[in-house]
Amino acid sequence: MDVAGRVRAAFDRLAEVDRPDVWVTLRDRDAVLADARAVAARLDAGEVLPLAGMLVAVKDNIDVAGVPTTAGCPAFAFTPGTSASVVCRLCSAGAVVLGKTTLDQFATGLAGSRTPAGPVRSAVDPDRVAGGSSAGSAVAVALGVVDVALGTDTAGSGRVPAAFNGIVGLKPTRGLVPATGVVPASPSYDCVSVLARRLDPARRALAAILGPDSGDPRSRAWPPSARLAAGPRPRLGVPDDTGLAPLSPAARATFDSAVAVYTAAGAVVERVDITPLTEASALYGTVMLAERAAAVGEFLAAHRDEVDPVVASVVLAAGDLPAARLAADLDRLAGLAAEVAPLWRRHDALLLPTVPEHPTIAAVLADPVVVPARLGRYAAFANLLDLAAVAVPAGTADGGPFGVSVLVPAFADQVALDVAAVLTDEPELEPYPVPALDLVVFGPRPPAVLVELGARPMGPVRTTPGYRGVPAPTDLAVAALHAPGGGSLAGERWRLPPAALDGLLAALPPGVALGPLELADGTPAVAPLAVSR
Amino acid sequence: MDVAGRVRAAFDRLAEVDRPDVWVTLRDRDAVLADARAVAARLDAGEVLPLAGMLVAVKDNIDVAGVPTTAGCPAFAFTPGTSASVVCRLCSAGAVVLGKTTLDQFATGLAGSRTPAGPVRSAVDPDRVAGGSSAGSAVAVALGVVDVALGTDTAGSGRVPAAFNGIVGLKPTRGLVPATGVVPASPSYDCVSVLARRLDPARRALAAILGPDSGDPRSRAWPPSARLAAGPRPRLGVPDDTGLAPLSPAARATFDSAVAVYTAAGAVVERVDITPLTEASALYGTVMLAERAAAVGEFLAAHRDEVDPVVASVVLAAGDLPAARLAADLDRLAGLAAEVAPLWRRHDALLLPTVPEHPTIAAVLADPVVVPARLGRYAAFANLLDLAAVAVPAGTADGGPFGVSVLVPAFADQVALDVAAVLTDEPELEPYPVPALDLVVFGPRPPAVLVELGARPMGPVRTTPGYRGVPAPTDLAVAALHAPGGGSLAGERWRLPPAALDGLLAALPPGVALGPLELADGTPAVAPLAVSR
Repeated sequence: MDVAGRVRAAFDRLAEVDRPDVWVTLRDRDAVLADARAVAARLDAGEVLPLAGMLVAVKDNIDVAGVPTTAGCPAFAFTPGTSASVVCRLCSAGAVVLGKTTLDQFATGLAGSRTPAGPVRSAVDPDRVAGGSSAGSAVAVALGVVDVALGTDTAGSGRVPAAFNGIVGLKPTRGLVPATGVVPASPSYDCVSVLARRLDPARRALAAILGPDSGDPRSRAWPPSARLAAGPRPRLGVPDDTGLAPLSPAARATFDSAVAVYTAAGAVVERVDITPLTEASALYGTVMLAERAAAVGEFLAAHRDEVDPVVASVVLAAGDLPAARLAADLDRLAGLAAEVAPLWRRHDALLLPTVPEHPTIAAVLADPVVVPARLGRYAAFANLLDLAAVAVPAGTADGGPFGVSVLVPAFADQVALDVAAVLTDEPELEPYPVPALDLVVFGPRPPAVLVELGARPMGPVRTTPGYRGVPAPTDLAVAALHAPGGGSLAGERWRLPPAALDGLLAALPPGVALGPLELADGTPAVAPLAVSR
Repeated sequence: MDVAGRVRAAFDRLAEVDRPDVWVTLRDRDAVLADARAVAARLDAGEVLPLAGMLVAVKDNIDVAGVPTTAGCPAFAFTPGTSASVVCRLCSAGAVVLGKTTLDQFATGLAGSRTPAGPVRSAVDPDRVAGGSSAGSAVAVALGVVDVALGTDTAGSGRVPAAFNGIVGLKPTRGLVPATGVVPASPSYDCVSVLARRLDPARRALAAILGPDSGDPRSRAWPPSARLAAGPRPRLGVPDDTGLAPLSPAARATFDSAVAVYTAAGAVVERVDITPLTEASALYGTVMLAERAAAVGEFLAAHRDEVDPVVASVVLAAGDLPAARLAADLDRLAGLAAEVAPLWRRHDALLLPTVPEHPTIAAVLADPVVVPARLGRYAAFANLLDLAAVAVPAGTADGGPFGVSVLVPAFADQVALDVAAVLTDEPELEPYPVPALDLVVFGPRPPAVLVELGARPMGPVRTTPGYRGVPAPTDLAVAALHAPGGGSLAGERWRLPPAALDGLLAALPPGVALGPLELADGTPAVAPLAVSR
C-alpha cells in the first residue's frame, strides 16, 4: 500500500476543492507525510495494521497531540500533549491524521453555523448549511479529501451533517467509545462518532476505537446479551404520518422509497408513534445544555466578547435554570425511556428521517437559534434514551441529499449496522468485535432459535474427520457424534451472544449436549454433540 | 397457622408497649382481623402463601388502599384507592397490614425527628432517636409488634433506624423492587426497604416484592450476571483508620469485633480507603434534594405553614440551586462511581459501620439540620453509587445497639445477604429467586471455577439409575456417562449465573459437554456429560 501516495493525493484534492472553511488546523504536509512513511515502515516490519494508510480528519474538539484544540473558539485554544484515546487507537491501527475540522463552537449547534467564520457550506449545495456540529468532518469526507473523519454526536452532531452531505455517520452506543481527550459538551451523553462515504471504512474505524478506557468514567463494555445480527427479516418501526409530518412532500416520498427498499428486502415494517422520541428531543435544551453549562459555562461567562453570542446565551440560560427544573426534566426523561423500552420487543430497529429539513445558509443566518434547533427533532433523543444510531444516505429530495437513521437500543450497534447496510448495499460487512461464543450447527436450514437469539451466521465450516451427524429432537436438528472412522462433517458457524446460552442449554433434549467440536481449521467452537447412552 | 391469633397478639403487644408515636394510622382491629381470617380461608382452600400470617407495618409514604398516605405531613394526606405494588405483593403472599408508621416528613431526615409530634424514641433507649426516616417501621419491628415492616431507603432511611433499634434492614439494588405507589423522595434513588428482627423474615418479604412493574419506569430485572453466592471465603473490604475516625472508641471496638467474626469465619479482610464513598454521600444535599424539590417542592412552597420548616428549607434551597451546579455534581458522581468500580474486582463486599454515632433526642433538637445530616456518612452513597446494602446488628456500644452494613455492587444482593448472615448466625437462608441454571457436578470437592463464577451450592442430588461417573480433565473433575446398567450417581447441585456459562463451556475439554441430566427428583439440571467418541 502506498501510504505516502494517499497523503499526496489528499493534498492535491485539498487544493482542488479549495475549502479552507472546513479546517481549523491543517497539519503540515511534511509532518503528515512523515506519519505516512512511519506507517509504511511499520507495515514493512510486518506489523498488522487494520487501518494502514487510512487518512483521517479529526473534529476540533478531540485532542491530537501537538495540534491546538479550539472547540471552535480561538480564545479557548490549548495544545494537548497527548492525543485523545480514539486518536491514539486510530494511529496505532495505522491511520494518519490530516488535520482538525471546523465545528459549531463547543459542539453547540446542528447547522454548522456557529463558527468564527460563519456557516460552513454543504459539500453538495453551496447555498445550504453543512450541518453540525461536526461540519468540517462531514464536508472533508464528502469531498473525498479524507477516508474517514471523527466527529462527536451528543444530540445529532454526527448524524445531521452526514445527512446534509450525503455520507454515513455511525453514532455508537454511549460509552462504547471512550471520550478521553474530548472537550466535554454534555458528558453524560457525549459520543465520538465516525463519518465516511461508505459504511465499511466507518465500521473499520469504529471497530478500532471501541473499548473501555480508564480515563473515561462513562466507558462501558459490551454486555453478554448484545445482539450480533439483525437477522434476515428485521422488524422495522417507521414513524406514522404524524411523525413524518415535518417532511416536505419530496422528502416524504424519498423516505417512503427507503422504506420500500426494506420491505422488498424482507423486513417487516410497522408504523410507530414516535411522540416519546420527539418529546425526549425537546429535553435537549435543559438536560444536555445544563451539563454544557457545568462543563464550559464558566469559560463562556468569562469570555462573552470572544465566544459565539448564541452559544453563550443558550448554554448559560440552561445553567441558570433552577436545579429542580433540571431534576424534573431528568425525571420526565426516565419516564420517556420506560415508554420507549417496550418498542424493542416489537422492533429490532427504528427507521427515521435523519433531519426534518435542510435549511439554506440564509435561513440559518436569519434565525440562528430556532432553525438549528429544529434540526434535532429526529436525532437529539438518541443519546438521551440510550440508543445507538447509524445515519445513511437514502437518495435525494428538494435538490439535495436525503438521509435516514437506523436507531436501536444500547449495544445493538451491530443490528443497526446490518439494517443500514441494506440501504448502502454493503451486505458482506465484517461484524464488530463483540464478545461471543462460536456455535456450529449441522441442520439443513438455519435454526430459528439462533435467529431469535440474535446470533450471526459466520459461514460454512468442516469438522476434523471422525464425526457423523445424528438426528437430534431439537431446533438445532442434528448433533455431531464422534465416530471412529467417521468423516468430516459440514456445518455452519454461528456467533452467539453469551447470554443466549442458558436458554439454548435449557432446551436441549436428553441425549444432546453442548461441547467442544474439533474443526478442520483449528478454531475453537462448541456444537450440539450426541451423548453416550 | 393461627393467623387471627397473630393479629390479636399484636394488638396486645401494642397496648403493652404504649408507643402511639410509632403510628400515623393504626388500622381498625376488626379490619385487620378480617384480613387475617381471609388469609386463613385462602390457606384452608389450599393456596400456597409464602408469607401467610406475616404481620406487616408500612411506612406512611407507601400506599395502602383505603388508608391515608401522609408522608409525615397531614396537609399532604390523600387516601389511595389502590395499594403500592409492594403492598399488593405482600398481601397476595399472605401478609396482613397492621398500620402505617411514622416517618421524617417526605422521608427527609435520618434521625426520625421531623414528624408532627417531634422525634420518635428508639425502641432501646428512650433518650435517643429512633433514626429515620423509617422511624416508626423500625420501632414497630424492634418492639415485636409486627414481624416485618416496609421502609424506604433513599439515603439511608432504612438502614439508619435499623442500626438504632438493633434490627436488620435490607436495602435492595435500585429498581429491583418497584416504587409504584410510593411517594417520591428522589425518584432516581428511591428504594423500598425491609426491616425485621432477623434476616430470614426480611429476606422472605423481600423475595415476595422483587420484580419489575410497569408502573415504575426505573424497575430493573436481575441481569444474567448476578452473583448467586458470597462463597466460602468472601473478600471483605473494611474502612481504614481514617474511614473509621468518626466512631467513638467503644463503637470502633465493636466494629473491630465484627470484623474479627468475619476473619474467624474465613473471610479475607483488607482495609480500604472509603473517601470516594463519603464524598458521594456529601452529594446528597444537591443531587438527591434537587430531585425532592422537583417531586414535592411546589407543595412545600405552597404550604410553608403546614410543613416542617427544616424539610422545606433544605429541599427548596436545593431546588433553587443553578442547574449547572446540579449537573456538575452529577458529573462528579459519575467520576466517583468510576473510582469505586474497581473495588469490586478486589472485594466481594464492603463492611462499614451503618452510622457514625447515635445522637440523643436533645442533641437532634439542639441542631435539627446538622446532626441528622451527619448520620448519612456511611449510608447516603449507596444508592448514589448504585450499590445494594444489608444493615445488621453487631453488638452494642456506648450503651446502645451498634450496627454494621454490608455493601455490594448492584444486583449482588445475594452476596450481601450471605455475608450479613454470618453476623446474625443464619447460615441456611434460602436464596433470592434469581434467574439461574442448575448445574450438577460429581467431583470430590467443590470446583473452584464455580465459586469464582458466583455459583451457589444447593445440596446433594442423585441421578436416575443408568449413569456412571468418568474422570474428566476439567475443573468439574467428573463427567456423567449414560451407561445401561449403570447406577444412580450422587452429585451436588449448583445454581449458576447464566452469564457464567460461556466461560464454563469454553473451558470444556474434548469428550465432555454440558447437557441435560436426569435427576431422581425429576427437577431439571444440566451436568458435564461424557460424549460418545
